[in-house]
Amino acid sequence: MYRSHNCGELRITDTTKEVTLSGWVQIGRDLGGLTFVDLRDRYGITQVVFNLEENENLCLAARKLGREFVIRVVGIVKERSNKNPNRPTGDIEVEALSLEVLNASKVPPFTIEEETDGGEDIRMNYRYLDIRRPNVRENLIFRSNLAVSTRAYLANQGFIEVETPVLIKSTPEGARDFVVPSRMNAGQFYALPQSPQTFKQILMIAGMDKYFQIVKCFRDEDLRADRQPEFTQIDCEMSFVTRDEVLDTFEGLTKHLFKQMLDVTLHDFPKMSYDEAMERYGSDKPDIRFGMEFVDLTKKAKGHGFPVFDNSEFVVGICAKGIAESYSNKDVKKLTEWMQRPQIGAKGLVYIKYLPGGQVKSSVGKFYSDEVLLSWKDDFDAEEGDIVFILCGEKEKTQKQTNELRLEMGRRLELMDPAEFKPLWVVDFPLLEWDEDSNRFHAMHHPFTAPKKEDEERMLLGDHETMKNLRADAYDLVINGVEIGGGSIRIHDRDLQSRNFDLLGFTKEEAEDQFGFLLGAFEYGAPPHGGIAFGFDRLCAVLNGQNSIRDFIAFPKNNQGRDMMIDSPSYIDDEQMKELSLKTTIEK
Amino acid sequence: MYRSHNCGELRITDTTKEVTLSGWVQIGRDLGGLTFVDLRDRYGITQVVFNLEENENLCLAARKLGREFVIRVVGIVKERSNKNPNRPTGDIEVEALSLEVLNASKVPPFTIEEETDGGEDIRMNYRYLDIRRPNVRENLIFRSNLAVSTRAYLANQGFIEVETPVLIKSTPEGARDFVVPSRMNAGQFYALPQSPQTFKQILMIAGMDKYFQIVKCFRDEDLRADRQPEFTQIDCEMSFVTRDEVLDTFEGLTKHLFKQMLDVTLHDFPKMSYDEAMERYGSDKPDIRFGMEFVDLTKKAKGHGFPVFDNSEFVVGICAKGIAESYSNKDVKKLTEWMQRPQIGAKGLVYIKYLPGGQVKSSVGKFYSDEVLLSWKDDFDAEEGDIVFILCGEKEKTQKQTNELRLEMGRRLELMDPAEFKPLWVVDFPLLEWDEDSNRFHAMHHPFTAPKKEDEERMLLGDHETMKNLRADAYDLVINGVEIGGGSIRIHDRDLQSRNFDLLGFTKEEAEDQFGFLLGAFEYGAPPHGGIAFGFDRLCAVLNGQNSIRDFIAFPKNNQGRDMMIDSPSYIDDEQMKELSLKTTIEK
Repeated sequence: MYRSHNCGELRITDTTKEVTLSGWVQIGRDLGGLTFVDLRDRYGITQVVFNLEENENLCLAARKLGREFVIRVVGIVKERSNKNPNRPTGDIEVEALSLEVLNASKVPPFTIEEETDGGEDIRMNYRYLDIRRPNVRENLIFRSNLAVSTRAYLANQGFIEVETPVLIKSTPEGARDFVVPSRMNAGQFYALPQSPQTFKQILMIAGMDKYFQIVKCFRDEDLRADRQPEFTQIDCEMSFVTRDEVLDTFEGLTKHLFKQMLDVTLHDFPKMSYDEAMERYGSDKPDIRFGMEFVDLTKKAKGHGFPVFDNSEFVVGICAKGIAESYSNKDVKKLTEWMQRPQIGAKGLVYIKYLPGGQVKSSVGKFYSDEVLLSWKDDFDAEEGDIVFILCGEKEKTQKQTNELRLEMGRRLELMDPAEFKPLWVVDFPLLEWDEDSNRFHAMHHPFTAPKKEDEERMLLGDHETMKNLRADAYDLVINGVEIGGGSIRIHDRDLQSRNFDLLGFTKEEAEDQFGFLLGAFEYGAPPHGGIAFGFDRLCAVLNGQNSIRDFIAFPKNNQGRDMMIDSPSYIDDEQMKELSLKTTIEK
Repeated sequence: MYRSHNCGELRITDTTKEVTLSGWVQIGRDLGGLTFVDLRDRYGITQVVFNLEENENLCLAARKLGREFVIRVVGIVKERSNKNPNRPTGDIEVEALSLEVLNASKVPPFTIEEETDGGEDIRMNYRYLDIRRPNVRENLIFRSNLAVSTRAYLANQGFIEVETPVLIKSTPEGARDFVVPSRMNAGQFYALPQSPQTFKQILMIAGMDKYFQIVKCFRDEDLRADRQPEFTQIDCEMSFVTRDEVLDTFEGLTKHLFKQMLDVTLHDFPKMSYDEAMERYGSDKPDIRFGMEFVDLTKKAKGHGFPVFDNSEFVVGICAKGIAESYSNKDVKKLTEWMQRPQIGAKGLVYIKYLPGGQVKSSVGKFYSDEVLLSWKDDFDAEEGDIVFILCGEKEKTQKQTNELRLEMGRRLELMDPAEFKPLWVVDFPLLEWDEDSNRFHAMHHPFTAPKKEDEERMLLGDHETMKNLRADAYDLVINGVEIGGGSIRIHDRDLQSRNFDLLGFTKEEAEDQFGFLLGAFEYGAPPHGGIAFGFDRLCAVLNGQNSIRDFIAFPKNNQGRDMMIDSPSYIDDEQMKELSLKTTIEK
């Protein structure tokens, strides 16, 4: 037997018991006649004490233990004289009677502590040491508990978890697929799913009524810090539902998870149309923890002889509270430069400072009288001491830039309270986006999204130009400016689906080749259905007020898609290549 | 709103309520002035009645409904005059007030009933219709519930579910890997995991203590009826455990699942060594629902002038009860032919019939006197009316053949009660198997399995010949002759692991290249650990007394590894091939 107790459970009520503990040496300290060892496992840390006078050999053996040695100790639980109130086991210590080294350890290349001295790369190389750090360990436990809560809630709502296949079929639509060469069907490939989208729709047509799955998905995209080639979704689909029934169900799930995991009670989630979100925040995932909403100045700003505004499609401003005096010209200049970086691409930044005593200072004071500028004050609900920033240009671009500015000012003014959670449903997205480059429509959500009921007939019969204004019965859940997930009511009618493929530039043959099984299935009693998918990694991060999903993945890949620890991907045998009927065009 | 109730929940207490139901038309019947429609969804079937006299148009519309049409009906719940006691909703019917066709259906290519007229291929092509059949649907629901129960039990025992990566590294050991070409690392490949083996060991080294995962695994093997290229495991690992602690934990899980899912109470599972299982049953996964155990006749049968037995390494018999008189010579001849088929490969079959009145009849009566044959009767606990079958040859081959005979006789005599469950732990497997062809050892379980404690030193220091007798600390759970899963205590010492790789024919470079990360991890405080994996698909089948795992997989692949419904695998674009730096050596 390796242990009678774990390292986190002994208490003052256990004193005088003989116990066996196993774990890792967190740290050892020699204090004259006593040697203390902090013994650590997943559950906690227990202090073990070795007495030089009472058992010299044992104590000398303990002094030889290095950090991260794995040991087994038998001893007696004693009350500590100097208790440690910060540790659940801090009232006791174990006086060692025997010691066995189960495995030695080299000196680890970084400290196994919450605040470690190891950089990202070395921690990923030695991920098994990294996970021993309490914060990483707790992230993984949190993730596991979140999955337990999610499954319990959905099962309780009548959802059935169905495993959909991982080896599926490549479709050029959407992001790039990872593919898997088939040995038995030489020259052909499976693809790894970007999502179980078509399978969950097939399950609705199969009458499963309520489906969910916590499922790995794959995208061969160029990676950013917050993207992984494999990621996890809470994937759901329901039959015979309207949009609001879907939203209610997953609002219920979200509230449940916040309550269970954080003891946070969320109020009912507001709904906002895509158009309104763009008008008020310039973003389809606004952070509504703070205001600083857009004020459209296009009409008011024109006609005063300032050619930049006069020639702009769109002029928009936001108001930052209370910094008119503290923000120097240099600060504004720096902010302007930040906005002019290629990532944002603003041409310039106009400011108006509303100063105490009714004074106004502005970078466009030459063109606008104080009276005019003061007349805009109410539009922003501005007070003396506030500063207004104004951007202009093409509408869509300017909205995006102003969104970046708003978020940056929100950060600088610390308006995003990490302890506050503000969920929002964004609804009524456009169905199709016109892409100038490829001269065709793209699906804003995906090709299976239904138009809103009232747009159905127009979609089937309308002329091409009016397709740009079709609204989708699609929705996103946004919390604190992060998109947790999204979904839609799906098309369940063959004609409508064919029309959509048509609009998206599929030929009849391509549509049949790639999605023939789904089109066929629509002809055998497909029920109305809709669903949603939440990014599970993202949800973990947001619940913990963190930005990086990588911290919640046990074995993440780096930005080159490599697993640093196992050193993958790697070259394979010529024999394997031959069996797969493959050749590489690269010189090794 | 599509429905106020589902099609399985209305009862006599709901009469007079106005309800809305949606579902599929199972069947319609016209009985003069009344038209009945059985409306079906996942939850059940409700009878809807249309009255020609009261609402002619509605009734005429109902008469046009075809099988599998999707409809919405509003109506009033009424008590039925002729109740259907076989249906939970059989006390009521819904008198229709309105009817809407939500989607039409072509006539399905097979009947949507438990006993369908559709063959395997057509059902797989139209899997969405196949899943509408109540037995397939219930299999998937059973699977979902089994996962819920498994997770609840393991979470309750302190196990953490950790998702291990799907894109890992190819290792030539074991079965063939599916591989995934990397675009970002041109010429290199990921592999899909055959199991998360190394990752779960890394998680133990990382201090996670108790890990589990219900996880997809992949093997590119030539497929048999009961194999799938992707399958699901309940995968577990524990630290600081002895073998019996692992067995107790998963015996507990198994008992829990049988109780929860079937209300079956399993008694404590016996343990049997591999050697004993081979001696008594000629199999490492014996079905112990019935006896018919092997009796070793090698000594007794020799020296009587029968050259076939005299020249055999091994002579073994089993006793089939009560068929001595009913089994004619023709029956025995047929059985002999069955045993001589190439799949089994027996050279012949000797019988002894113990007939009423002390008579004996045997195919080797020429060589053995009645007295001798009668003297063997007690060895078999045989009675008058029993028949003994005897096989001989090389020991291992003969054991396998006799195992086949025993199972066949068990089937013929109906000794395997499908309602009875007899679990068994088979333990102490050989560590290594000598392979004559490749002139090297193979790991009987896998290369990470530890030898039994008492064999450790011999493994490190002994000469090559003695390696054949090393025992592994490995175990399998067998229920009714089906291997549910297996596992082992793992090596956690670098030297012992290196020695094992060495014995398995790895060069130092190969071991380092493929498993360097694990060998390295062993040097940083690897705890003693062990684990197990259950085949989840198989467990579903065994719990339902069924043979095929395919019936418990939503979208199985056929024996060519193809998904018939989506028609995958398939060819991919030249553009995709180019991006992956790949060429096929096959002409399309």
